[in-house]
Order: sequence, then C-alpha cells, then structure tokens
Amino acid sequence: LLAAAIDRCGSPVCVGLDPVLDKLPAVVRAGHSEPVEAIRAFSLGVIRAVAGQVPAIKFQSACYERYGAPGLSVLEHGIAVARELGLVAILDAKRGDIGISAEHYAAAAFGRMHADWLTVSPYLGPDTLEPYLAERYATAGKGIFVLVRTSNPGSDLFQTLPMADGRSVAHMMADAVDAAGSRSIGVSGLSTVGAVVGATKPDDAARLRARMPNAIFLVPGYGAQGGTAADIVALVRAGSGSVGTRGVLVTASRSVIYAFSEQQGGQLEKIGAADGWMVAVADSASTLASEIAMICR
Amino acid sequence: LLAAAIDRCGSPVCVGLDPVLDKLPAVVRAGHSEPVEAIRAFSLGVIRAVAGQVPAIKFQSACYERYGAPGLSVLEHGIAVARELGLVAILDAKRGDIGISAEHYAAAAFGRMHADWLTVSPYLGPDTLEPYLAERYATAGKGIFVLVRTSNPGSDLFQTLPMADGRSVAHMMADAVDAAGSRSIGVSGLSTVGAVVGATKPDDAARLRARMPNAIFLVPGYGAQGGTAADIVALVRAGSGSVGTRGVLVTASRSVIYAFSEQQGGQLEKIGAADGWMVAVADSASTLASEIAMICR
Repeated sequence: LLAAAIDRCGSPVCVGLDPVLDKLPAVVRAGHSEPVEAIRAFSLGVIRAVAGQVPAIKFQSACYERYGAPGLSVLEHGIAVARELGLVAILDAKRGDIGISAEHYAAAAFGRMHADWLTVSPYLGPDTLEPYLAERYATAGKGIFVLVRTSNPGSDLFQTLPMADGRSVAHMMADAVDAAGSRSIGVSGLSTVGAVVGATKPDDAARLRARMPNAIFLVPGYGAQGGTAADIVALVRAGSGSVGTRGVLVTASRSVIYAFSEQQGGQLEKIGAADGWMVAVADSASTLASEIAMICR
Repeated sequence: LLAAAIDRCGSPVCVGLDPVLDKLPAVVRAGHSEPVEAIRAFSLGVIRAVAGQVPAIKFQSACYERYGAPGLSVLEHGIAVARELGLVAILDAKRGDIGISAEHYAAAAFGRMHADWLTVSPYLGPDTLEPYLAERYATAGKGIFVLVRTSNPGSDLFQTLPMADGRSVAHMMADAVDAAGSRSIGVSGLSTVGAVVGATKPDDAARLRARMPNAIFLVPGYGAQGGTAADIVALVRAGSGSVGTRGVLVTASRSVIYAFSEQQGGQLEKIGAADGWMVAVADSASTLASEIAMICR
C-alpha cells in the first residue's frame, strides 16, 4: 500500500508532523484559546496542504500526548483526515514492550487509531516485534518501522559500538529486522517490517541496505540535519523497479511544516489571505517531493 | 521520595496495574457497558485495595492507550487517585525519542500526568535520556527507570550479546545508566536514574548491581516468571541502611491484580459483598509485601 501510494505521487517523501505550540503561525495561535485546538487547526492545515503532494505523513505522537486525552483525540482526528485524503499515516510513537502490552500498543495504533505504520523500538528483543506482525494486521497492510540506525548525534554512542562477532549494534538489529520481515514480503518485493535509517550516516548506508534488502527505510536527516542526495542514493534498493519499490521514504518535518515566515504571514493577512502559511507548507512539500523524485529516479 | 515511601511501608514492592478487559472480575464487567469504564472501575478498585499495603503502583500505559483518549483520561485519573492515597506512581510507557520529542514525552508523563517515575527505552542513545533529567523534574523528585535487562525470554537474543570490549549489551547500557545518574544522587545515596532489571537473570544480577551501585532497580519477574528470593537478594545494594535505600523495587502484576477467583466472587456476591475481589487483591498485595520485606530485611 505504501509502495502504491509512492508510485501514485511519484516521489518517496513523507512530511513529519511534529507540532510545537510556540512555532505555530501567529494566525493559528491567535484563533484558538486552547493550545490543543491550535495544534488541531495546524495539524489539519498541514494535512490538507500536503495531501496530493506527498504519499505519506508521519505523526509525532509525543507532540499530541503532551496534551493528554484531548491531544490524543486530535491525533486520532488527524490520522482519520489524512487517510481520507489518501495519505498513508505513519504513527511515530517508538513503542516497545513485551507480550500482552505490545499487543495493546498494536491494537491502539492499528485497531483504534487506524495508523498504517508504527515506529517500534527494539531494545526488549526481537520477540517483542511479533505482536505488530499478527496476520490480521499484515492482511490489512499494516507495517512497522524498527529503530535501527537513527539520525541523532548520540546514536553513535550506542548503535555503532562493535559486537564481539564484528557486527555493530545497528547491524545486529538490521539482521533481526530482515529475519522478522522475511515472512511478510508482498508482491512488491517489500516487507511489512521496515527500518528507521538516518540519512546522516553515509558510511553505514550501503551495508544496512545489503543487510535489509527487502525493507522500506524511513529516512530522517535529509537537508537540515546534513543528509545529502548521495546519502539517499546509497539507501535505495538495487535493481528495483518503480519508485515505490526503491525502499526509501525520506521524511522531513520542520523544513516543511514551518516553511512560512511570520513576515510573509503578516503581509498575507493584510490582504485577507490568513491561510497563506498553508500555501508555504504546500510549496515546500512540493519542492521537496520534486527534489527527492529526481534523486530516486 | 520513593525511598521514603518504601521505608514508610516497610517493603519495596510495587503493584503493576495492567488491566485487560476479559480478565476483570465479572462483577466489574457487568457493571459497565463501556469497556473503558470497566477498566476505570477496576483500576480505582485496585488502587484503593493496595494503598497503604505497598509504596508504589505501576501503570502499564498500553492497557489504557488501547482505548484512545478516554483510556488516557482513565490513566490520568488513576495516577491522580494513587498519588492522593500516598502511592508513588510509576508510568510504564517505555518511551524513547530524541530532542524535542523526548521533551514532550517528559512533559506528558511528569507535567501533565504527574507520574513520579517513567520507564524509558534507551535504543536511541544516552543523549535521549537527558530531557527527563531536567532540573525542574529532578527537584520535583521525578525519576526514570531505563530498560537494561528485561525479564522476557527474548531479551537474551539481544541484551546478553557480547560486545567487542567484553561487556554485554546490557552491561554497556548499565554503564550509561550509571553515568547519567551520577549527577543526580540524593541524600539517600540513590540516583534519579534507575534501571529495569528482571529477577529472572541470576547470572547477571551481581554484575549489574556492581555496575549501577546507586540505581534503584525496578524488578519484574519475581514469582510466576521464576524469580526467587535469592535472585532479589543478589540485586540489593551492599551495605545499604534502611529498606528504602536497598535499591530494589519488586513489581508484580497479574499475581496481585487477578488474585480473586470467579468462584470466590460468585460466593461473595451472594452474600452481598460484591467488592470481594478487592479484598483478594489487598490480601495478595499484603502477602507479597511481607514476603519481600523478609527477603530484603
């Protein structure tokens, strides 16, 4: 389903929705006395602005959980609207637990929230991935992105440490992802077990792709964090067909959702176009989609 | 604060609240047409039953998130009631993210929910622990339990793997926990950075304690999962004073919260004591507290 959505849009790009109150456009903040309602208005605005421009949107769960139960309602609302508008909805919640608790997280993300993909943290062991891979989720096209090699600087203090067998921690995790995903490879050749692999670790890119030939990589770190076109190319699957089967989904958050400037905003409001910030978001998403489409041709 | 609460109760025991609908007492299910309201009634019943018997209660976030925003409201309600009744509230949510997202998780758990402790998953790197250790949280007595050596069987497929430097993955993480906690050691000699260390890994217990001399261990796995008195003793801090400073908090979930049997329940209902299940929970918590108090004398 993700591969098909990428093919429809022509570019493997995901917009990351990480709304933080004090960064919202002034016009959005001014319109809502409740912070969580400003978060709702902004989220729905971004979703509408990027629908049709990109195949997928990623919701940062923490930004909604911050507001408790009302925040979770806004998150659920956002996922529903995104899916109605044809976007694949990724819930970036980095969940990880054992047995029945993991089953509950899967039920929360896939059953209740109707997210299409969920990010999962693997520290508890490979068995803790299983509940998300239950047949009823797989047949509904649900998948997980497992944290393997993240883009934050501190990840090097752990994920690159060498194991006794010569692999790094991240390589060991990559092998676990490949093993878990080998049972669930669809007609596209892609598995429902993907991986988070940052675009900021060029030395590791080719090796991680070799270890996970069938995984879709959710790729943060392009642009502002230093990831380049070459870094993306190194993550693309060898010999893949359509752009949807290249196995990368480049995700960008702040550079897209905060693409407006307050100066522009003030000018637009004067001429009665208070939604000018949405135009800036749409333009930015479209520019990024073109850029990544060129890279992944 | 946790050490003081343990000293007041005389036993380092925590009841794990992992409510699953189909395991609730029939009388609770029958009284509520909305599943989430049955979860609320059961949660509040357990909290009231164990308050005064044990120092702490651990809420399994997944069991509440399963019900979306209403579930989160129940969780928030439960934490508030638990704290009112003098229980230290641990939110078992195993969160882990970078930068601003981690700040939002900390704000959700400590600022919004008012949990006293939060479980945290460390795969993203040691820098991702920092937002939870901000001064405003430390001064309010908030702390984290970092996943180090968990009690699930599959954890051995990852946490015990040897690193090139001779440490296991869990030992490497233990050293990171010790380093992160070294700045925040209170008058009790204990740090606000604790660790989850299962009671089911006897070979590792003494070594993990040696690597984290100042950490409080949240210890699952006692009893039903196979952990013994000797396994708990091996995790206790050497030369510690009062029971609150011994650095262990043994946690038990199902053996306590599902201590009633439906047979008993039916008999009790006949004589008009529909809350008999709460008596069974209270008895079970009290028995466990006595048992662990003996072990940790």
